[in-house]
Amino acid sequence: MIYALKGDIAYSKNLNELSTYKNHYLICDGKKSLGVFKSIPKKFKVSKIYNFSDKLIIPGLVDMHLHAPQYSFIGMRMDLELIDWLNTNTFPEEAKYKNKKYAESAYKIFASDLKKSATTRFVCFATLHYDATSILFDLLEKTGLKGYVGKVNMDRNSTKELSETKEDSIKNTLKLIKKVSKNKNVKYIITPRFIPSCSNELLKELGKISKEYSLPIQSHLSENRSEVLWVKDLLPESKSYADAYHMFELFGEHTNTVMAHCVWCNEIDMKLMENNKIWVAHSPSSNRNLSSGNAPIREYLDRNINVGLATDVAGGSYLSMFRTIEDTITTSKLKWLEKDIEKEKNTSTKELKSLKFNEAFYLATRGGGKFFDDGDTKVGSLAEGFDFDCLVLDDKNFDTTLYKELTIEERLERFMYRPNEKLVAKFVAGKKII
Amino acid sequence: MIYALKGDIAYSKNLNELSTYKNHYLICDGKKSLGVFKSIPKKFKVSKIYNFSDKLIIPGLVDMHLHAPQYSFIGMRMDLELIDWLNTNTFPEEAKYKNKKYAESAYKIFASDLKKSATTRFVCFATLHYDATSILFDLLEKTGLKGYVGKVNMDRNSTKELSETKEDSIKNTLKLIKKVSKNKNVKYIITPRFIPSCSNELLKELGKISKEYSLPIQSHLSENRSEVLWVKDLLPESKSYADAYHMFELFGEHTNTVMAHCVWCNEIDMKLMENNKIWVAHSPSSNRNLSSGNAPIREYLDRNINVGLATDVAGGSYLSMFRTIEDTITTSKLKWLEKDIEKEKNTSTKELKSLKFNEAFYLATRGGGKFFDDGDTKVGSLAEGFDFDCLVLDDKNFDTTLYKELTIEERLERFMYRPNEKLVAKFVAGKKII
Repeated sequence: MIYALKGDIAYSKNLNELSTYKNHYLICDGKKSLGVFKSIPKKFKVSKIYNFSDKLIIPGLVDMHLHAPQYSFIGMRMDLELIDWLNTNTFPEEAKYKNKKYAESAYKIFASDLKKSATTRFVCFATLHYDATSILFDLLEKTGLKGYVGKVNMDRNSTKELSETKEDSIKNTLKLIKKVSKNKNVKYIITPRFIPSCSNELLKELGKISKEYSLPIQSHLSENRSEVLWVKDLLPESKSYADAYHMFELFGEHTNTVMAHCVWCNEIDMKLMENNKIWVAHSPSSNRNLSSGNAPIREYLDRNINVGLATDVAGGSYLSMFRTIEDTITTSKLKWLEKDIEKEKNTSTKELKSLKFNEAFYLATRGGGKFFDDGDTKVGSLAEGFDFDCLVLDDKNFDTTLYKELTIEERLERFMYRPNEKLVAKFVAGKKII
Repeated sequence: MIYALKGDIAYSKNLNELSTYKNHYLICDGKKSLGVFKSIPKKFKVSKIYNFSDKLIIPGLVDMHLHAPQYSFIGMRMDLELIDWLNTNTFPEEAKYKNKKYAESAYKIFASDLKKSATTRFVCFATLHYDATSILFDLLEKTGLKGYVGKVNMDRNSTKELSETKEDSIKNTLKLIKKVSKNKNVKYIITPRFIPSCSNELLKELGKISKEYSLPIQSHLSENRSEVLWVKDLLPESKSYADAYHMFELFGEHTNTVMAHCVWCNEIDMKLMENNKIWVAHSPSSNRNLSSGNAPIREYLDRNINVGLATDVAGGSYLSMFRTIEDTITTSKLKWLEKDIEKEKNTSTKELKSLKFNEAFYLATRGGGKFFDDGDTKVGSLAEGFDFDCLVLDDKNFDTTLYKELTIEERLERFMYRPNEKLVAKFVAGKKII
């Protein structure tokens, strides 16, 4: 069934430029975009027109990293750094998901809020529990959103309440892969928590499973400086943190791989990220909340490393990808200043230009969307041939006409900074879910 | 008329500690707080009880610095630094307020949104225009909020459309001081834009007026590094930026003085701020948006310098003091990291601990509130004797009961990170305005 959306349309042409269309028609064949037109071409048998005149129509936003079980304590107890935060807040909470009833109540709230958010695609951690993760898959599958979820693998350095043996870890992973293999929306992703949580044997097995089943991989990389030192201690034979994953073929050797944070990567890490086409899931809210640091996103872009944006709930304190765009921009400005100050002291080699609005918008759409490309599927744009993921935004609450006739680009920028305004409709792969 | 609010009450005991009262009564004599009680003491003839059970009751939030005329372009064109941003975005917009009709439409939106916000007290810039500023005074006076507004003084280094002679600047200032002298809520504050905008003669006159009429002063200090250099060029005889104000008795010599930003203050500035009991209006959103820098708030607190928080609309991209609290915390974490990194390089002398939630909450209430203390009046707390400025917050949208029974402190922290939740009621000096 072909349908059209009428409104003010914007999507990224590339990292720097937006394509904008005032009062145009965006046409969908039921799954993919057929493109943007001034009027509806006769060749399309359009059976429905959604009139979103004066509203903004943009691609869906892609959240490249978040933790579903942590949503229950979002926005609290932010006064700790990563390792203490994990032991004090996170592990005790995740342990509760052993209880199926608890998991179901908590995940229902999470799935419902994610559906209502601006996110259309996601890459998500569950807990280590088979049952709870199975429930999460079912709930998310029903939302109509698309994404990846992984049961967390972790067989060392955790609490007694939140641990598994290597054998159980592998067994439950394989069981879940099988269970969700027929899912249409939410697919499996291999999910070693991070190097400190996984024995070498477990990492090795996960590398094999990823290769055998052609499954993508998600994990954490160089989030916090103490963590980086710990990894070096645990795996002295690794040349760097990234190399620790690489040793077990968990670093883009066979499948798409996304690494959250990448705040403190060194030259060896970056070279591996370049060569193995890793995605960075940039989480500015989390990196500030946990005092992790300010990731060198400009440097990654200059090196042509893939970058997507992420809320990292609940290190990140909100589910909003609009705010993630805002925080990506503002955090990069402080990065630029930090580098600028170093330069005056002659200790820095390179100036890192801050990110412009258009760049952050690209990262939140096509930057992360590319992770979902697969054969005939392309994600993160409204151009012809892309999966029809889109959002309709009402930016009329604030009386902009007073200021002057705003361009679509200006309205879009303003919307990102004022995300309280209204999300009117949301489509994922052609299906209207709000 | 004595009345009581029943609910879960929190206010700052001091910079580090919260006082919290589950299911208590906060009693008001119509203007001031009579204190918090488990049950209503018989001695009070309470004529009305507001039942806000399960809701949070906190002091009103104090916005120590914002620009009313800039509200019309909030959240746009953030890709510039201060001086370019002023010339490109701000001055052309402020010039429009010469038109009374434009001013009235724009200020109506501003006053209405400020009334609906979490702000109970404010310190605010207008434009240089007499008529527009007069309209702003009238509109804000009617909201029931309390605050200070100043006509901006600026007789050099601006655009042709936005300029005034020294004579007009003084004349219109005096005219406005007279006009608003009977106001109950919104009072006059002397408002030199900043050193680059004011001739020495104008600054001298403003210092005299402030002294003669006992009027407080607001301006900007050391926001941006190029600005600091420019001030040095303009006034080579000044020992520092702060000293440039001090030379004209505009730096707390006679009256309360608040300086926005204070990002790049040096030792001379800080000593003057200490000695003259200056308020710093810390504006983390603005300082990120305009790539200004990361102000050393911990250092100011260690030196016992007064600090309040501020949105700095429209350098700041929101009107929310809740988000200002969040951004104060997260920005201070990056400051700590920056200093920590410098330390490793042996270039720093001192580690700046990041700000905890309780500290930022204090700054947003009593920190700025103290600026409004006057004889019998005290502002920024719900303790007995303080002006009855308070907010009632509904934090039940998010199902917290799942996680566990949260303390009032945890609920409050979470609310600051999730300010989309509901502001249910707002009182200013005993008057219910929402």
